[in-house]
Order: sequence, then structure tokens, then C-alpha cells
Amino acid sequence: MTYPNRNTLWAETFVDELAAEGVDAVCLAPGSRSTPLTVAFAKHDDIEVFSHLDERSAAFFALGRAKRTGKPTPIVCTSGTAAANFHPAVIEADRARVPMLVCTADRPPELRDSGANQTVDQEKLYGDAVRWYTDVAEPEATGRKLRYLRTTAARALGSATGTPPGPVHLNFPFRKPLEPVEVEGDVPDSFEADNPLAAEGRDGPFVTVSQGVPELDSDARSRLVDAVRHAERGLLVAGPADGPTPERSALAALADATGFPVLADPLSGHRFGHDGSIVGGYDSYLVPDVTEAWPDPDVVIRFGASPTSKTLRRYLECTESRQFVVDPAGGWREATFTATDLLVADPTRLARRLADELEPQSANETWMARFERAESAHWSLVSDSAEHFEGNLLASVAKLVPDPTTLFVSNSMPIRDLDRFARPRSADVTVLGNRGASGIDGIISSALGAGSGTDDPLVLVTGDLAYYHDMNGLLALERCGVDATIVEINNDGGGIFHMLPIESFDPPFTDQFRTPHGLDYSATGDLYGLDFERVETLPAFRDAFSDSLDSSGTNVIEVRTTAETSHRIRESLQDRLVAELSA
Amino acid sequence: MTYPNRNTLWAETFVDELAAEGVDAVCLAPGSRSTPLTVAFAKHDDIEVFSHLDERSAAFFALGRAKRTGKPTPIVCTSGTAAANFHPAVIEADRARVPMLVCTADRPPELRDSGANQTVDQEKLYGDAVRWYTDVAEPEATGRKLRYLRTTAARALGSATGTPPGPVHLNFPFRKPLEPVEVEGDVPDSFEADNPLAAEGRDGPFVTVSQGVPELDSDARSRLVDAVRHAERGLLVAGPADGPTPERSALAALADATGFPVLADPLSGHRFGHDGSIVGGYDSYLVPDVTEAWPDPDVVIRFGASPTSKTLRRYLECTESRQFVVDPAGGWREATFTATDLLVADPTRLARRLADELEPQSANETWMARFERAESAHWSLVSDSAEHFEGNLLASVAKLVPDPTTLFVSNSMPIRDLDRFARPRSADVTVLGNRGASGIDGIISSALGAGSGTDDPLVLVTGDLAYYHDMNGLLALERCGVDATIVEINNDGGGIFHMLPIESFDPPFTDQFRTPHGLDYSATGDLYGLDFERVETLPAFRDAFSDSLDSSGTNVIEVRTTAETSHRIRESLQDRLVAELSA
Repeated sequence: MTYPNRNTLWAETFVDELAAEGVDAVCLAPGSRSTPLTVAFAKHDDIEVFSHLDERSAAFFALGRAKRTGKPTPIVCTSGTAAANFHPAVIEADRARVPMLVCTADRPPELRDSGANQTVDQEKLYGDAVRWYTDVAEPEATGRKLRYLRTTAARALGSATGTPPGPVHLNFPFRKPLEPVEVEGDVPDSFEADNPLAAEGRDGPFVTVSQGVPELDSDARSRLVDAVRHAERGLLVAGPADGPTPERSALAALADATGFPVLADPLSGHRFGHDGSIVGGYDSYLVPDVTEAWPDPDVVIRFGASPTSKTLRRYLECTESRQFVVDPAGGWREATFTATDLLVADPTRLARRLADELEPQSANETWMARFERAESAHWSLVSDSAEHFEGNLLASVAKLVPDPTTLFVSNSMPIRDLDRFARPRSADVTVLGNRGASGIDGIISSALGAGSGTDDPLVLVTGDLAYYHDMNGLLALERCGVDATIVEINNDGGGIFHMLPIESFDPPFTDQFRTPHGLDYSATGDLYGLDFERVETLPAFRDAFSDSLDSSGTNVIEVRTTAETSHRIRESLQDRLVAELSA
Repeated sequence: MTYPNRNTLWAETFVDELAAEGVDAVCLAPGSRSTPLTVAFAKHDDIEVFSHLDERSAAFFALGRAKRTGKPTPIVCTSGTAAANFHPAVIEADRARVPMLVCTADRPPELRDSGANQTVDQEKLYGDAVRWYTDVAEPEATGRKLRYLRTTAARALGSATGTPPGPVHLNFPFRKPLEPVEVEGDVPDSFEADNPLAAEGRDGPFVTVSQGVPELDSDARSRLVDAVRHAERGLLVAGPADGPTPERSALAALADATGFPVLADPLSGHRFGHDGSIVGGYDSYLVPDVTEAWPDPDVVIRFGASPTSKTLRRYLECTESRQFVVDPAGGWREATFTATDLLVADPTRLARRLADELEPQSANETWMARFERAESAHWSLVSDSAEHFEGNLLASVAKLVPDPTTLFVSNSMPIRDLDRFARPRSADVTVLGNRGASGIDGIISSALGAGSGTDDPLVLVTGDLAYYHDMNGLLALERCGVDATIVEINNDGGGIFHMLPIESFDPPFTDQFRTPHGLDYSATGDLYGLDFERVETLPAFRDAFSDSLDSSGTNVIEVRTTAETSHRIRESLQDRLVAELSA
């Protein structure tokens, strides 16, 4: 192989090393300064290219794909504001601990802060949101520099997939010519022969990174074992995490060994896919009117991020108990300040060790019965409800999706409704959402990115504001070859604000908070070549949803709802449940 | 006046002070954490509210408005990735020196990095792109803190409008309750009576900021005067600047006094609106084949940013001359490294002083005649051309727009075509573009923001990729009450790449650079309630464009072009001109 110039050599070596480390896809946005990287990625046989025109959507697509696959999909853009459009997804990747590799092209040092076109300060552009930033060295055809470059690729991927995973930013300076045109003498003909290792790499990664994970010593573990042994009542709480954490079998073993009920966030990976008993209705009933008659748990063991349910967070906050928060990265994801113990430990290994070390305990039947009764009452109410409201849409989605399914749910109300109304099932439903920073940006792209990383049917449930925010993301349906069933719940604005005290202050409530936009999204069907259908009743929705699951291509099912009505029905269902449970 | 709680007092005092300092509009994006600011802005009688649903578009709207008005329009968003969506426009404001006031709501200190919902690290989120960042103090009803807050408002506006102007970021922590609900004792009833100055401010700004501008001493000035006096041939080059810099009358006086031709970038504020002679066709003919027969100028005086025209930049780079770069902020906006003198001085004052100190010089007729002949030949070729190509669209737009007009032009090809094909006119056409970072993001919003700040008719010329990138910005047409004539030049992808060597490498040229998308934008007419018309010939375009200028409402005129054909016609016209001039 010969290289026409140093930029070509540099970019192809970098991409070759990424492929050797297991990278199998890339998101590219068009631009000139990034030409060496674009050309190198596009010509690599083992890397699938997803081409995007809006860098914001590109980065969220890569984020969603990484959430589903656990592996980073590099994103590449040209210099300038293009890189800033990656920023929202970079922040989400940081907060949600999603591996991401951001490759930005930059001017060479002499052109920085020079007034040259499309030249901005890209150094540390994402601040502390990245695990590692480096300004890559200037391309040059020397063995030492190519070894540095391969090592940099390995190091970047290692940082992005460490504990915790997250974004890494490599800023690549390139000097013209950017295209693979011949530059006499730039790469000597004998370069490969003289530098075989640097030029060709190894058979496999140039540096193999083995990631250890934290394990407690026996003293720390036995403190936990003692606490569990002496507890009359305990809880296992699984918060959001892209992959089930602990793994499903490990949490099941821990539940068996402790006899504690498992409260599973819809994003924890545990609401679905378990054969055992999972508590999922807590958002409706763990309220003071019910729990004031309950004794507090003695021990709570929490995994994953802070739960989506404010009800659950408040319950834990008001509970006098020993609360162990398990976090492999030593993060203090505990905004209610109720933790008594932080365990910096790998959740799966800890759960398994704990289950092994505890002699099997019989469950506290009285304690379990409280949850069983509450769950039974809650799910009866939910399944009996025939009302057309947002909660019932999420209940239907959770019930109707096939096994397996990848289900992406937008922020604001859909994730909250899924939390409250999605009954646990043994079906393998992978539920994903952007709960790191909980933005309504980039939802469509994140979902389609997740879809690109799995053979599962893909379902996205989004509100109308999130749909608007990332309409550009719909372009990926055709350009990236993803199919989806998109449920767009249209209550014409920010329905969530009905849940907040600002509802009582109008103006400015309607104009500045609910912000009705009146957009007719059926035009997005024409724009992006997808089937757009509007339904207004629950049976019509269920039919349309089932039909879409059975068909190929992408369907958008818009369901018109009224935010206020939905909110009142949520309240009324909860009131009935609380009345029943506190009777 | 009484305040229900400290957040209300805090936000209303801040907004009151901004209004006292002359702020008359704000861009708000809906969110919860920013509720105190949103409510305060919305209820203020002297502040117009522009409500946006996509923060990226909101920030570009404010940018465009500030470019047109010279005054910052604050942008407000909630915590989380919302703030990161402002980042592209913040960078553009930095590079293009546009005043901007970014107000982000944040969690209070105890919730930062706590795993609390929608909590990200917002401190110094925009890095070095802002003139000033501060984490605002926590709200409290004390006189001292309110005086601090009013001073902070004055200081923020002062920094945003200093030399150079640019973005300022205030990060506001708010603790619940965020709504104007009564909190007993939070703001004592006697607060205003006890703290009249802090509570009510002054009659006018709390601190009046007077901005001095740099002026050279007489030694430095006389070095410039001497150089000009001894020059046989000189050039005045006006690069991009949002307001004409120097002011039009000052540059005209300097041109008179020196006898030097004025080469005016389309974004300089000098291509249009001058009665005198302006050189505008240089991008076609200042090429080696023509200029090798010309003597070099002895002196070049440059104002504004680096010229859009690569031809002009190269000409200046290859010219042996004394090159004075005038920059009031001491910026080194000079990527060809040809400057011999940097003059840190206010351009208008310098131009006037220089004109005063020079005895009127008769122009070098031979030197002027070279430009006159070239201009005459170029503009004849342009006006004789009846060919349907992108350059002719920009030529037509520049010729047909009424006096006055605000014309916004997107990056990539439209601004380059305007540079080459827009003949100077005395009509007051304000031409704006985002040339700070030259992104294709946020163009529609920037244009509509500019339109919101003027009574001029608004014309936007954009390529199809820029149109796609900021389709969300079209929502402002209805929500913000702006009308526009939008010329969307659709060559189905990135036509500019035909001008680069990558054109010869296909693949990946078509898929990864030109990136044809095939989108049918007529659907955006339905989505955003605008008149969408597609034309395919030059006469049809001129008719549609004239009709749109005569009508109200917003029209999108899509002109289908072929990038490659347009590029070949550009080349052919230039070849004919060069042949004529070098004959």
C-alpha cells in the first residue's frame, strides 16, 4: 500500500487501528477540513458509514447506537460550529455514561485564532464533559508518530469504555492538501518497509486494554452482609442504566438471597426480561398516604442512577434506613442526600458475591405482601382503564411490543408515564432513554441510532416537542436504513408543565411554558417519506400500533391527547389507588 | 410592589435592570428551572418576548437580531443540554463579535454533580468563547445582594458591548419554589422601604458604562500618514463587519483623501449604500493571469475581518506592499501573515483623522483605470449573462432588492456568489451573514432574528443544506411574527465541494461530500404555513422574486440548480474576463 500524502497515511492508520480495536461503524457529517478522516473511514471495508447532515443529530445517533451496543461509534465533523453541534450529545454521554469518540478536524496551529475561515477555538471544547481530550499531533510520516497515533486510538477507546464510560474528544489538525492527492516525497516509498509495525499495526489491537472493575474487600463486604442479615425489611432499587446493572441473573440471585423486593426503574433493564417478581407500580403508591401505615425498610441497596420516579426518591428520602448506594465509578448520584454508605464496586460482582455469602433467607411475608397488594391493585386499575390518556398509551405500548423489542422513550411525560404504567413483563424489552441530562433534544436520532445497533424491532415513543426538536433526525430513516414505529403523543406543547405550580399563573403559563405550536406533523410524512397516521382514540391507537409492528418501513402514529385531561386522569387513578390501599 | 418569594424578587430585579439599560427584547425557550427569569421577562412591559422551542434556533435568532440592531437580545433557557444547544451561536457571536447575553438557569450548588435530574456542569460551559462568565450568587432578599445583581446586569451588558463585542454567560442558580408562589417571610414586607435603591434601581442604568475606543497617538498616526503620502498606488480593503467599519462617510472621506480604490466585501457594509465608486468584482479578476501585468500597490489599509474572497486574500498575500491591518480589539485576523503593521485603533476615528491630516491627493489615474477597466468588463459580462446558474441568482437578488433591504446570505456558495456577482449599488442594502465561524447551522434563525430588528424588507438567500440544518428556525415566522422572502437554492447537497479537489475522488465524493438528500422541501410549506414555490429558470426566478417582494407574508422560492453546471459557468465567465483583461 502506498499513501499519496501524510494526511492520507495519518487518517488511514488511525481508522485502521480503530477497526483493529473493534470499531465497526462511524457517523460522518460532510465538511472539508475533515476530508482525510472521512475518506479513510469511507474506504475501510469493515466500517459501516452513517452519513448525517446535521451534526447535532449525528452525535445523538451515535449516542443511541452506543447505548444499545455498549460500543462507541465515532463521530466525525469539520472545524467550526459543527463541533459545537455535537455538544448536547456529548453532555448526555457524559451524564449517562455512554462511550463516545468525538473526532473533530481543526486547522493546524498556525491558523488558529488567525481569522482564517471556519476556525474557532476547539481546544477542550467540551470542558469537563469528556473523559479525555487531546490535541492530536500534526501528521507526519515517521514510525514513532504512527505508533503514537495507534496508541492514541487505543487510549481513546480505552478511556471511552472505562469506568465510567463516556465521551472522548480527539482534535485533529490537518494542513492542506486534505484530499488524497499526490504530494511528492511526503510519504517516502520505503516508509512501510522501514516501519512495518507502525504502518501495519499488530494482528489485533496495537495496545490491548484490559479494564479492571472495583471490588470491595471482605471487610467492607461483610458490613453489607451483616446489615442485610439483620434487616427485617429491605429493598433493592434498580435505577437507570443502559445495560441491566447488576446483570439480570445477578440481581435475581440477590433478590432470592435477601428476600427483598426489587423496585425496577423502566430504564434499569430490570422492569422487563425477568422471570421473577418485579415491583413496577411504586410511582403510584409509595406516597405518604399509603406508606405512613408501613414500617420503614431497614436496608435499601441502590444500583444505577437516581430513579426516574420522584415519588420513589421522596419515599427513600423520608425513610429511616441504611441506604447503600452502589456505584462502580464512585459517583455520588444521590441528590436527596439519604445515602448512608457509598460502595464503589462493580454491581454485578458485588451482587453475586453477596448472594453467595448470604445463607438463603426467607422473605418477610408481611413486607412482601404490602408490595404485592399494592402492585395487584395498581395493575388492576391500569388494565381496567379504557380511558384515552397518555398513561394508557404507554401501558399499551409496554404490553403490545413483541419479544424482543428495543423501546426508546423521550423525556418529559413519556418516560414518567412508562414508569408508572408499564407493567413488568418477562419479554426482553430493552428500554432506553436519555436520562443523563434529560433533555428533549436529539430523541429521534438517539432512538434511530439505537435501532441501527440491533435486529430488534424499534419503537420510539416521543412527545410532540421532542419530535419537533429533532425532526432533522428523521433523515436517518432513509440515509441510515433504519425502520421504526414512532408513536408521537401530540398534546400540542409542554404537557409536563401542567404538573408544576406554574400551571396556576397564566399568563405566562400558556405562552411561555405550555407553548402550543399548532404544527401539523403530517407534513413530515411527505418530507421524510414515512407513513404518517393520526389517531384520536385508545382502540384506534392499539390497532394502528399493532399494525405497524407487523409491517415494515417506518410509521409515525400521532396520537392526539389533551395534557390537562391526561394529568387529571393520572391524578384520579392515583387517588383511587391510594383510597383503596389506605382503606 | 411586593414579591412572593426571593426568586421572583431576584429575577424581576435583574430584568428591571436590563430594561433600564436598554434591553427591549428577549428570546425564551420553555423550561422549568428558568421559570423565575421567564416569568419576569414575560411580565415586563418594555420587553418583547420571542418564544422558541429549539434553543439552537433561539440563540441564532438572538444573534441575527443583534447583528442587525447592534444590541444584545438576551437568551434564556433551562438547565441541562438546553444550554449546550446555544453553543454554536455563542461561538459565532464570539468570532463575529456580536453582542449576546446568555442566561442559563442552573441547579443550586448543593444539587450540582449530584445525579439530580437535568443537572449538568454548566460552569464555563462555553469556555473561552465568552467575554465574561459568572456563576450568579444565590438569590436572597438583601439590599447588598440586589445592588450586586443590578451591577452584574450592567457589567454583563458592558462586557457584551465592549471592544470587541461578544457573548457573556450568566449562570443563575435557582432553588425551588421556582414559581411566583408565596413563601412566608422570604421577602420581608418592608424590603422595598428598607432598600429603596436596591429594590427600585436608579432612574436609568444602575451603572452607566461609557466605552472608550482606542486611538493612536500622533507618532503612530504620522507613520501611517507618511506611508500614504509616499504611496503611488494604494488600496483600501473593507472586510466583513456587521456595521460598516469605518462608517460609510469616514471611509468615503478616506478614499477621497488618499485617492485609493475601495475594495468592499459584500459583508463589509460598503458594497452597497455608497454614492462613490466601489470596487466589487475583484473576486473574478485579481488573479495572477491578470495582475502579473500590474505593479503592486505600495500601501494597503485593511478594515474589518479577513475578506470572504480567497482570490483577494491570495492577491494580498502575493503583493509586496506595506499592509496596515486596523483592528479596534487588537485581533490578529490575518491568516495569510502579510500584515506589516497592526493598528489597534477605532476604524472610524482613524479614517476621519487620517482624511483630515492628508492634503487631498489626486488619484493615480493609471492605477484607478486598471480597476475601472476590470470592473467595467466584469459587470458587463455579469449583466449580459442570461444563464441559469447560482451566480446569476445572487446577481439578480442584489439588483432587484428594494432600497432599503436587509439581506441575509448563507455560507458555502451563496456568500461567495454574492461576493463575485453582486454589483455595488447606492441602495441601502444591509448584507449580513454568519462569517465568524462560517457554519451552515442556524442560518434561517439568524436571518429571521435580523428581520425582527428592522422595518426593512427581509430577504434570505440560503443553500439547501443550510435550509435543512435549521428548518426548525422556520417556526419563528409565525411565533415571532417575522415575514421574509426566502430564496432557497437547491442543488441537492453540498455544491461547494465541486470547487475542491475531492471532486475527483468518487467514491467517496458523492456519498460523503456532495451528500445528495433528495428532500422535497415543498412539505415545509405545509408544516410552517408559508408559500412555497419552485422555479427552474432565471426569468421565472426573477418574476417570483419580484412578486414576493411586492407581497406580504413569507414566500420560499426554491430554485433548482446544478452545482456542477454552476461551477463550470463561474469558471467560464472568469476565463472570458481574464482573457479580455490580459489581452
